[in-house]
Parts: sequence; structure tokens; C-alpha cells
Amino acid sequence: MDVRALCDGDLELVCRHREALFRDAGEDEDVLRTMTQHFRTWLQPRLRDGAYFGFVLSDNEQPIAGIGLMLLDWPPHPSHPTQDKRGYVLNVYVEPAYRKRGLAREMMRLAEAELAKRGVRFAVLHATEKGRSLYAGLGWIGMTEMSKSISSDSPADRIT
Amino acid sequence: MDVRALCDGDLELVCRHREALFRDAGEDEDVLRTMTQHFRTWLQPRLRDGAYFGFVLSDNEQPIAGIGLMLLDWPPHPSHPTQDKRGYVLNVYVEPAYRKRGLAREMMRLAEAELAKRGVRFAVLHATEKGRSLYAGLGWIGMTEMSKSISSDSPADRIT
Repeated sequence: MDVRALCDGDLELVCRHREALFRDAGEDEDVLRTMTQHFRTWLQPRLRDGAYFGFVLSDNEQPIAGIGLMLLDWPPHPSHPTQDKRGYVLNVYVEPAYRKRGLAREMMRLAEAELAKRGVRFAVLHATEKGRSLYAGLGWIGMTEMSKSISSDSPADRIT
Repeated sequence: MDVRALCDGDLELVCRHREALFRDAGEDEDVLRTMTQHFRTWLQPRLRDGAYFGFVLSDNEQPIAGIGLMLLDWPPHPSHPTQDKRGYVLNVYVEPAYRKRGLAREMMRLAEAELAKRGVRFAVLHATEKGRSLYAGLGWIGMTEMSKSISSDSPADRIT
């Protein structure tokens, strides 16, 4: 098993991993196709300039797992009062035939070490249902994030 | 009651709101002081160039509540497959004497309308314990975000 840093040439691999993990989570094929088309455009310059980084694991020169990392510009916060960055972990994917061997756990260890090397003191991720217990076992704790889809006809009510 | 957009001159007001809301949430004074010092440095250029925007409510020309907004660069996702941005709502604060009058709810309505106007279709926020039921009542739902403080001595274990 080999590990190497993500590079420019991994564009399609990362797109495939992101699509596969959301497919595993039950997302619709039409949505996945649209997402990947836009994600590819988003990812290409960021893989090139290193804003998106991470690792690929290979077995006999075949990539079998990957993990992505970013640094988010973020307002200093009680969890990182001196820093204006958060680490972000995404697109953690292991090919089905290679699961249950601890590879995701190993990739998370690499990711945390890489973030630490870059001076990051606080990181976040979004867990799929399947991933949550793995991350919890590695010391990641649930946050209070909430989300909403914004309707384009939200009323701009005035306060009177 | 008047509403206006945030401007350059609101630097100290926003710093005060952010500090007060985390104080209400039980954060330590030393942490708050350090956070605000770094937050001010972070915020100043972003208020100026409009990367941080939002609204202030005033009563008799005294600011009594505020809300902040940002657009986060984000990889296209099943919740926003064609967009590489998420709206982010933060620093929602109402002075104690003006609570229980629906002002936070009104500010959220302004915020959603502003995000919609800017073409944003998906937004997130982090709720304090006190804020959660308000946001839930406005249609915001819990996410699966997890976080971890990254130790600077994370072992860079190699996969063998």
C-alpha cells in the first residue's frame, strides 16, 4: 500500500470519489451528475494551486482511497481565538473492496498531521451517516451547525 | 425601529456583538479578549470590501441588534449542485433589553432575503443553545458537522 499527495492529475479521481460517497449516501443520480460537472470546474484550479490538497492511497499502483483537505477562511472563534483559518476534511472515500481495513482511519491520521504541519489548530468535516462513528472514535465531536435552502422569493419584509 | 446595512464604521459594534454572544454562551473572558483582538483584525478589511455584510437595527439612533453575513467558497454539493458558494449567517445579537420582541426573527428574514438577492440557494449557521429553537422555527435544520481541535504533535504515521 502506497500513499502520496494529491496532484493535478487526480482531478477525475477526486470527482469520482465525491460522486461515489454521495451516491452511497443515497443521493439522486441527476443531482450527482450536475454536482460533479460543477465540482470539476471548481476543483481544477484549486488542485493546481494547492488550495485543495490531500492524499491518495494505492495498491499495486491502483488508487483505492483518497482524502481531501482545505483551509477555510474563518473569523477567529473561541475554538481558535488566534487563528482565522479552519481545516476542512472532505471527500474521504475508500473503494468497497478495501473497506474494513482501517484505511479511512489511517487517512484521517495523515490529514490531521498535515493540518498540524500547516499550523491549523481546529478542523471540521461533515460526516455521512456511515462515517460518523469512525470520526467519533477519533475524537471528532458533533457541532451545532444548521442549514436552510434559501428560496429565491424570500420576502424582504421591512421592520416597522 | 430603523434598519440599515452594516458599514465600515460598525467595526467595534460587530466586535462587541460577537464577544457578547459568546459571553452569553459561557465562554471564558480570557478567550473572548484574545478572540476579539484577532477578530477585529480579520473583520476590518472584510467590512471595507463587503466580504462581511449584514444589518444593524437601531432604536432612537442607538444600535440595538445586528446580524452578519458572508459568502463561503464551497465545493458544489448535493444541496447546491450548481453553486460553489454557501451563505453563512453569524453574529446574530440583540441587546438584552430588546429581546422577546421578534427582532432576531426579523433580522433572519432580512438576511435570507439578502442572500436570495445575491443568488445564494443554500446557507448555514452555527446556533448557540439559546438560538437553536428560533432557527428551527424558521426552517433551519441540523447538520452533521463534526469538529476536532488539532494537536500540534499529531503523529504523521505512515501506512505500511
